Amino acid sequence: MKDTNMQQAYTQKISKAIDELTHEQSYNCVCHTRMRDIPMPSIDRLREIVNLCREIIFPGYFGNTPVRAESIQFYIGVNVERLVELLNKEIFAGLCFTHAPGSLDEIAAEKEQAMRTTVDFVAALPELRRLLKGDAEAIYNGDPAAPNTGEVIFAYPAIRAIGNYRIAHLLYKMNVPLIPRVITEMAHSETGIDIHPRAEIGENFAIDHGTGVVIGATSIIGNNVKIYQGVTLGAKSFPSDENGNPIKGIPRHPIIEDNVVIYAQATILGRITIGANSVIGGNVWITEDIPADSKIVQRA
Amino acid sequence: MKDTNMQQAYTQKISKAIDELTHEQSYNCVCHTRMRDIPMPSIDRLREIVNLCREIIFPGYFGNTPVRAESIQFYIGVNVERLVELLNKEIFAGLCFTHAPGSLDEIAAEKEQAMRTTVDFVAALPELRRLLKGDAEAIYNGDPAAPNTGEVIFAYPAIRAIGNYRIAHLLYKMNVPLIPRVITEMAHSETGIDIHPRAEIGENFAIDHGTGVVIGATSIIGNNVKIYQGVTLGAKSFPSDENGNPIKGIPRHPIIEDNVVIYAQATILGRITIGANSVIGGNVWITEDIPADSKIVQRA
Amino acid sequence: MKDTNMQQAYTQKISKAIDELTHEQSYNCVCHTRMRDIPMPSIDRLREIVNLCREIIFPGYFGNTPVRAESIQFYIGVNVERLVELLNKEIFAGLCFTHAPGSLDEIAAEKEQAMRTTVDFVAALPELRRLLKGDAEAIYNGDPAAPNTGEVIFAYPAIRAIGNYRIAHLLYKMNVPLIPRVITEMAHSETGIDIHPRAEIGENFAIDHGTGVVIGATSIIGNNVKIYQGVTLGAKSFPSDENGNPIKGIPRHPIIEDNVVIYAQATILGRITIGANSVIGGNVWITEDIPADSKIVQRA
Amino acid sequence: MKDTNMQQAYTQKISKAIDELTHEQSYNCVCHTRMRDIPMPSIDRLREIVNLCREIIFPGYFGNTPVRAESIQFYIGVNVERLVELLNKEIFAGLCFTHAPGSLDEIAAEKEQAMRTTVDFVAALPELRRLLKGDAEAIYNGDPAAPNTGEVIFAYPAIRAIGNYRIAHLLYKMNVPLIPRVITEMAHSETGIDIHPRAEIGENFAIDHGTGVVIGATSIIGNNVKIYQGVTLGAKSFPSDENGNPIKGIPRHPIIEDNVVIYAQATILGRITIGANSVIGGNVWITEDIPADSKIVQRA
Amino acid sequence: MKDTNMQQAYTQKISKAIDELTHEQSYNCVCHTRMRDIPMPSIDRLREIVNLCREIIFPGYFGNTPVRAESIQFYIGVNVERLVELLNKEIFAGLCFTHAPGSLDEIAAEKEQAMRTTVDFVAALPELRRLLKGDAEAIYNGDPAAPNTGEVIFAYPAIRAIGNYRIAHLLYKMNVPLIPRVITEMAHSETGIDIHPRAEIGENFAIDHGTGVVIGATSIIGNNVKIYQGVTLGAKSFPSDENGNPIKGIPRHPIIEDNVVIYAQATILGRITIGANSVIGGNVWITEDIPADSKIVQRA
Amino acid sequence: MKDTNMQQAYTQKISKAIDELTHEQSYNCVCHTRMRDIPMPSIDRLREIVNLCREIIFPGYFGNTPVRAESIQFYIGVNVERLVELLNKEIFAGLCFTHAPGSLDEIAAEKEQAMRTTVDFVAALPELRRLLKGDAEAIYNGDPAAPNTGEVIFAYPAIRAIGNYRIAHLLYKMNVPLIPRVITEMAHSETGIDIHPRAEIGENFAIDHGTGVVIGATSIIGNNVKIYQGVTLGAKSFPSDENGNPIKGIPRHPIIEDNVVIYAQATILGRITIGANSVIGGNVWITEDIPADSKIVQRA
Repeated sequence: MKDTNMQQAYTQKISKAIDELTHEQSYNCVCHTRMRDIPMPSIDRLREIVNLCREIIFPGYFGNTPVRAESIQFYIGVNVERLVELLNKEIFAGLCFTHAPGSLDEIAAEKEQAMRTTVDFVAALPELRRLLKGDAEAIYNGDPAAPNTGEVIFAYPAIRAIGNYRIAHLLYKMNVPLIPRVITEMAHSETGIDIHPRAEIGENFAIDHGTGVVIGATSIIGNNVKIYQGVTLGAKSFPSDENGNPIKGIPRHPIIEDNVVIYAQATILGRITIGANSVIGGNVWITEDIPADSKIVQRA
Repeated sequence: MKDTNMQQAYTQKISKAIDELTHEQSYNCVCHTRMRDIPMPSIDRLREIVNLCREIIFPGYFGNTPVRAESIQFYIGVNVERLVELLNKEIFAGLCFTHAPGSLDEIAAEKEQAMRTTVDFVAALPELRRLLKGDAEAIYNGDPAAPNTGEVIFAYPAIRAIGNYRIAHLLYKMNVPLIPRVITEMAHSETGIDIHPRAEIGENFAIDHGTGVVIGATSIIGNNVKIYQGVTLGAKSFPSDENGNPIKGIPRHPIIEDNVVIYAQATILGRITIGANSVIGGNVWITEDIPADSKIVQRA
Repeated sequence: MKDTNMQQAYTQKISKAIDELTHEQSYNCVCHTRMRDIPMPSIDRLREIVNLCREIIFPGYFGNTPVRAESIQFYIGVNVERLVELLNKEIFAGLCFTHAPGSLDEIAAEKEQAMRTTVDFVAALPELRRLLKGDAEAIYNGDPAAPNTGEVIFAYPAIRAIGNYRIAHLLYKMNVPLIPRVITEMAHSETGIDIHPRAEIGENFAIDHGTGVVIGATSIIGNNVKIYQGVTLGAKSFPSDENGNPIKGIPRHPIIEDNVVIYAQATILGRITIGANSVIGGNVWITEDIPADSKIVQRA
Repeated sequence: MKDTNMQQAYTQKISKAIDELTHEQSYNCVCHTRMRDIPMPSIDRLREIVNLCREIIFPGYFGNTPVRAESIQFYIGVNVERLVELLNKEIFAGLCFTHAPGSLDEIAAEKEQAMRTTVDFVAALPELRRLLKGDAEAIYNGDPAAPNTGEVIFAYPAIRAIGNYRIAHLLYKMNVPLIPRVITEMAHSETGIDIHPRAEIGENFAIDHGTGVVIGATSIIGNNVKIYQGVTLGAKSFPSDENGNPIKGIPRHPIIEDNVVIYAQATILGRITIGANSVIGGNVWITEDIPADSKIVQRA
Repeated sequence: MKDTNMQQAYTQKISKAIDELTHEQSYNCVCHTRMRDIPMPSIDRLREIVNLCREIIFPGYFGNTPVRAESIQFYIGVNVERLVELLNKEIFAGLCFTHAPGSLDEIAAEKEQAMRTTVDFVAALPELRRLLKGDAEAIYNGDPAAPNTGEVIFAYPAIRAIGNYRIAHLLYKMNVPLIPRVITEMAHSETGIDIHPRAEIGENFAIDHGTGVVIGATSIIGNNVKIYQGVTLGAKSFPSDENGNPIKGIPRHPIIEDNVVIYAQATILGRITIGANSVIGGNVWITEDIPADSKIVQRA
Repeated sequence: MKDTNMQQAYTQKISKAIDELTHEQSYNCVCHTRMRDIPMPSIDRLREIVNLCREIIFPGYFGNTPVRAESIQFYIGVNVERLVELLNKEIFAGLCFTHAPGSLDEIAAEKEQAMRTTVDFVAALPELRRLLKGDAEAIYNGDPAAPNTGEVIFAYPAIRAIGNYRIAHLLYKMNVPLIPRVITEMAHSETGIDIHPRAEIGENFAIDHGTGVVIGATSIIGNNVKIYQGVTLGAKSFPSDENGNPIKGIPRHPIIEDNVVIYAQATILGRITIGANSVIGGNVWITEDIPADSKIVQRA
């Protein structure tokens, strides 16, 4: 204004940037287009979905619902109805994100698949609660500083990370794309615990502290396993195809058998097996099978 | 609709899930009930409490309060009043969460305890400010990349984690249940720094980067200590009682004396003592006492 | 009330705390004052700024904007206009935070600088998109579990951390104070990845999992580098000046040349060089130069 | 700043105003004080209370609750629970607003009264629904432009004004102070229809258009009455006591018997009776009894 | 609690009320059910729709959009895109509200109708702007207190009421049910001006003050008409069918020809004609035709 | 999609509408442009300003501020500080809306004027409180249904309408454009009471019910006046200039002297005088001077 030329120069620079950013060769490959009426997956809705699952599974802890024996059915009923509405929409959005429907018939088919999957997910909620009850107890039993299971459910990051994983894993097994990963990444962001939704994890799973834990996509974990912060269950190396790209989908992460404990910062790499009842000490680096009942410690 | 039978099948599946989820044997142990009028601890209110403490302690940095000499008293006054209101409610909620009152007299007693504790907390705010001022300066002095203390206060995760810890520790010492842990877990989620509210930490405490730091419940840290990302002050093993459960409450984490520096990813386990003025190098694994003035480094 | 004396005692204790907290010697050094009309940097606005950049760079993925060929220009135009408005304000706030203007002329000068910098930033957005496109592809190619680039852009923490870094680095190079650090700390909080805005990072940069990654202020990273969770590019020790304070600003972090891969939890310290095409194994501890084409692994 | 003296003058003027505003003789009579823990009535909560009543009475119309036969009980249950919580709090706040409790016993008594009243209100909800169903039908039948009762319930201001009145009247009869008036004023603000909560109104009451309708505190209205916009049922004059102040509480508004229709802008003043089945034309001014079956029109 | 019996009595009373409210004979006729996936009209979304229309028609006045010549197309483009999305959804919801679809084919047909209507509405926006420009000028010219058209557009209730009417009338003519009435009732609530969406109103229409204005469903108003607060264009009486119900849909409101002025509180009833260029004085009551160029005043 | 041609037709129609709406001849006269950095008046901020004034004037009634003797200064201080910030911005926005500044010097001058006016407004707050205290008492004394002044302050529309008017009138007298009208229109919308900010109103002013009241721009009202719903103080006719446009700014509304009462729906038009102590009955129509101590009633 002081200098109108400068103002004009600013306006021109900005207009030029807008022009460049709207050239197809610029936005090509980093732009996601969709038809009217096809929804985009929504982080906010997915967050609400996870919160609804937590309210349904652990009634009275979250969502300001003053649960009493005579009212619990109302809260569960309303929350399940809302969950159906939101999850149906997000699964449909996830399907369309990965495979954009090209005809009305495809849209109808993906809608039908979304609804069927949603209902199957809801049907699995009682089992999900049973599993998470076991996890909460395992976390409580394994932590001398935990005063009661209520505090574990209400405040511990591990139960949140495992909860998101179990929800995501269920959806993953029902062939829902994208959504499972978003759900585990939410927990990753909140807790620093990174569990791939494809990993298979048994009952009574406990994590302590948890920041930095990584559990890779093809990991298999048995029952009653406990791990500490910074533990990596990772891949050692990736076989590449003829083009030098990593081959996707082959087993490449560890198998952890029942009753194993893995202490902080331990790194376990490759499709190896840690035998049942073993104890893996902190900071160790393991790339080969460990027989059952072993006790591995770092040389101090 | 296309297939009304299918719609009915969906509705039946959903209704069945709701029925199962409202069976007492299903929600037993994972349900938190409370009487009308007894509040549940609220993450949102606790977040506001922490933010109010930060605004009171570091006036003008947070909460959009344009502090000037002639107006600072207004902002502090209003913020303290609001803090009293919220903290009183949350402490009461925390007491009821852990010990559900069974009579009007018990409710009155817990209300009285909440108010007394709230006032004592407020009375300790000037001392809290003095401590955090020391921490901010220690962080600034120890970080060559820090341009000024203002930036440390406004933007550094360490000051947030230590602030939440000092608030939580104060409440812990006043026998407030649950709430302290929720407050340190908030910082844990935001910063990746996990300090148990029971830990005792001296003056001028500095953390750099911080992600992955774990400071266990019975740790004791002296003055002028500095630690880096990924450092664990943990427990080596837990003595179990006759039932195989860990015995709760016994000292099991390290004592770090004055002026110690601990570099990234170091793991220090068990009720051992790191003597004053020692330097512990990165990635080392320590499970035994270290005398004062030591310098421990990993064999590269 | 039951005991009016007690009520009065409470009120007095609270009033006393307020008095102490408003003594100048108490709030001195931890109080940030500013004139009317001079804005404070706002975390919320900076979050919106980062989100706007993401919407502009990756159209259609974020912000619920149903981008189509005929409408993309509208969304980009509106988002750029909003970005100019917000960024201009935040840069001005950042300048005033670090150097409080003392006269109307200084205010005008800082306003002018803010606007000029804002426009330059906008002009650099097309290049920013080109760089982040390369990063997204590098992340996709390096992760066998990634189904497509869309999922990387929408859900992977690495792209968020690198995106915030690239925005912050651009502002850092334009001499904007404070704001760059706040932007990288946002990503640090969300992802556990801590990249200093001053670090220099080449094209096609990939991070996997990421929690615990630390990249120090004077690090220099070449093209096509990939690092895993827990990797530290840190400083070994800080030369102190005659007063015992660390000397600020000197190069003290590693140089990582092109095509290097660094596996999980590796710690690389000091102004050393990791030669091109090297592979650094997990959990290793490196404080000296590594020649090109090396392969360093931990002794298992 | 340009002129520091001016800045100082501004600051002094502002400080002087604050001082004056905090003198007791200034705020005396226009200040409402209350003890810690005694809530203030909340317009926002009262709005939510009215909305909850509407959702309970007309299920599926408001609040985004997709009611179906198998789920209606969940929504009603949750809404009633929430209503109990909020209404209990607001009735207690209303009692304390009008009669500030001076002892713990008085607080307990007002809390008990609030809870008892709340429960009685909830018990009357089915009757409230029956009455409003009659009103909705009367409005529908009387309006040639109304396509169906659903549109009346969802969109007509009259049903909102009558609903708020019926809620408020119920609370008024239960001796709740302040709250009833706030509830009718909400409807007054939204619809321009001003019905005093003390007025008595029979079944199947219809209002058309409604803006400007005033129904005074001691009005009595029979069944099947219909009135149009701008109708006043007011007081003619107020007998004053020896001090010249109006005597409060005596009957001073009209009695409207069954099946009366009153057209737009008619003004009916004083404790007179409009006999059953009468039709009162628009813009007329009536201050004396009208026998049953009369037809009064303005001389055009 | 003091008295557990009382607590139980409360719980029973509440449970009984819930039971009664969920009996079908209670909620019958006042309950709106809908299938999953069929949306309910949303007041919030309709409010956003009206606001979007206002932003599009009067660029730069509303919605915080800093319009400039080089950016106006971006804002209009984004707002129109958003309008299409929302209006499409609301029209579909309105169609389903009035005629619940019973099959997938009906759903598809109503969706198609909604989209077609939405596009036609958008195509009419330029004409809508032309009409409202004329109204704004008429209001400005007729009000000696109006300083400029900008203030009329930004702050006058009349332009808001007429704007909502013109939007609603357009939708009414396109056979959209329910939605038009909700949109005019919004304006009725905000301004006290009640214009039925079916009324036909010519160009350059002005209202002054406006509270209490009622314009009935079959009114016809010419060009350059101006009316003041409290004016009613109403029906005199409703012919009833054999069942005593008013016959819906027949013309029963006045015709106001070009250039007529009607002063405050005038009441004009029945299908009569007020001839062109007439002036109708305040508070008059008219039920018969008035020839052109008349001047009717109340006998004072 | 079913019919791609139809989709294309839709897209073309929408694009055509956008094109037309962005033609300059279309948006000309209804578009408000402004420079970067020049704010637009904000309804939301003006609403907050009015609420702040109400909180400052009537401490403890609004804004959830639990005022007590020892804390009242904090709340008033913070609210005044916030008021200064917001009002300064809105006055500046109002100045720029009406007279767009064309140079940096003009911007600086309007900023200076905004700040000076803001400070003068704050200095007048104590007097504003004194006036509104008188109004609240007058309303209480005149309404037999009012139980106490507290309820008048908290819940009566009249005090809200008069409050907004007194705030607006103060700003009007300080030559602030636009903003005063927006503030009185807020009250108009909420209460149906339309008082022009230019009107002059004495002390102890009372309105009962209020919907439909209109008080024109050049009205002058003495002390202790009371008016009822639907009363119009209007203009009789507007002298036109040679172009047929009404001449703006000349006195054209009534003068109401002290102690006058005007009952419902009375219409008083033109620059006439209603003499002191007169009583004007409901529904009367007055266009000539009324001597003092008159009693005018409608012929029933």
